[in-house]
Amino acid sequence: MITAISRCRILRFRRDRVETAEDVVAVEYPVEIHVNKQLLAVLHATPRDLDALAIGYLMTEGFVRSLDEILDIRVEDGKVYVRVSETVDDRIRIRKAWVVKPVCGGLPGRSLSLLDRISNLKVDSDARWSYKEILNTIKMLNTNAALYRKTGGVHATLLVDARGLKLLKEDVGRHNAVDKVVGSYVLKGFEDFGRVFLACSGRLSSEIVLKAARVGIPLLASISAPTSLGVALAERFAVTLVGFVRGLRFNVYSYPERIIFHS
Amino acid sequence: MITAISRCRILRFRRDRVETAEDVVAVEYPVEIHVNKQLLAVLHATPRDLDALAIGYLMTEGFVRSLDEILDIRVEDGKVYVRVSETVDDRIRIRKAWVVKPVCGGLPGRSLSLLDRISNLKVDSDARWSYKEILNTIKMLNTNAALYRKTGGVHATLLVDARGLKLLKEDVGRHNAVDKVVGSYVLKGFEDFGRVFLACSGRLSSEIVLKAARVGIPLLASISAPTSLGVALAERFAVTLVGFVRGLRFNVYSYPERIIFHS
Repeated sequence: MITAISRCRILRFRRDRVETAEDVVAVEYPVEIHVNKQLLAVLHATPRDLDALAIGYLMTEGFVRSLDEILDIRVEDGKVYVRVSETVDDRIRIRKAWVVKPVCGGLPGRSLSLLDRISNLKVDSDARWSYKEILNTIKMLNTNAALYRKTGGVHATLLVDARGLKLLKEDVGRHNAVDKVVGSYVLKGFEDFGRVFLACSGRLSSEIVLKAARVGIPLLASISAPTSLGVALAERFAVTLVGFVRGLRFNVYSYPERIIFHS
Repeated sequence: MITAISRCRILRFRRDRVETAEDVVAVEYPVEIHVNKQLLAVLHATPRDLDALAIGYLMTEGFVRSLDEILDIRVEDGKVYVRVSETVDDRIRIRKAWVVKPVCGGLPGRSLSLLDRISNLKVDSDARWSYKEILNTIKMLNTNAALYRKTGGVHATLLVDARGLKLLKEDVGRHNAVDKVVGSYVLKGFEDFGRVFLACSGRLSSEIVLKAARVGIPLLASISAPTSLGVALAERFAVTLVGFVRGLRFNVYSYPERIIFHS
């Protein structure tokens, strides 16, 4: 049985004090949806109500149009097996021809076994940042997110490097905001992310951590929460994960060595 | 030139007054990324810094590993064309074999022309809700989101039907939380969503509106903002879109006919 929350040891920083604590994070789990014995999709989800998730997904995505089309549903080991009538198979076939096939738009669609295949990824950097830099950078992110102030409907990411270069990008997509600062840094002619730190407004899920690790970014900080898979990957890839940066406090979920707590 | 924000006429409700106003929403636009003349992905993004988005995407997703591999980049009509060295083609080929192909995990991967193909979708419902029901339901969503209270890392969706049945689901994924309440309602034996209303914690982007419209849900309300494409689809599909429900106020972006403003 996979639970919806998991506990982890963190370092909790507030004002000028740092202490170890236990924190609770939301579990992010790749749920495979199999339809008539074929894998249809992998959704990164909270592992609870998986039968409802699968049925809802099939209906809201237009594969299933009525209850009669669902013949059987079975949940096993975080995987859902749905048996449906042949009409649904036809719709899946038609959609396959429609949809952009190759890479799932950079979004989920990765199963756990797939994540295992990238286990050789490791961020090798001795860069360090003081707690003040982390607090100030998030403050700057909040202050300068102009599109967010106007619309309330976007996420922001701020890239800071050792030289003090700062790049802020905003996007309706959490992942896109990260891609844009990375791409913008590269377009300026930089390739080495070993002394780069990203401040984000959105949640630190597995995909964000994976994106950062892929280009070698050692530290990710966010106003928001990490997910369990975000923390697990950060540990595996040696990425420092800082969450809930608010006012004068934050939590460190992995690799606290890169943070200087006393100035 | 596609701008990052768009203006729309809304109805603004506060306390017991309703007035027309102009609001600003973040533009959500499907950006096609073509690599060596092949469409690689469609990202729903803010149409700004598209060259940075494409380069960042290619790097953080592991397709491009250094600047030398990028030979040329061109942005045209919200599409990005990148020419890369053959080594990148090989990586794309390998990933194709890895990744779950069919449906992009229910996430983006839809281009505008594709959205045009679902233009016959129309929610036909004469259901109406009072402003009090909207305010109270969002209040209930906030109060009962237990997983959010524990972790800060999930989204919640509350389904309410005409009988007063209420279903609350939470998930690390915004889309999953919607799928779960829909699936849960279906698992209880209900198929008709014509008198169902969903209260969400997350942003009302095109995908959420599309999911609701597909099963015939007439009203979506959220604590958070809609995107431009969310509003456009809601208008097209005849879905009532209510955003920024906070305290005693909210904005209505489409189909205000379904809301009773005076009790």
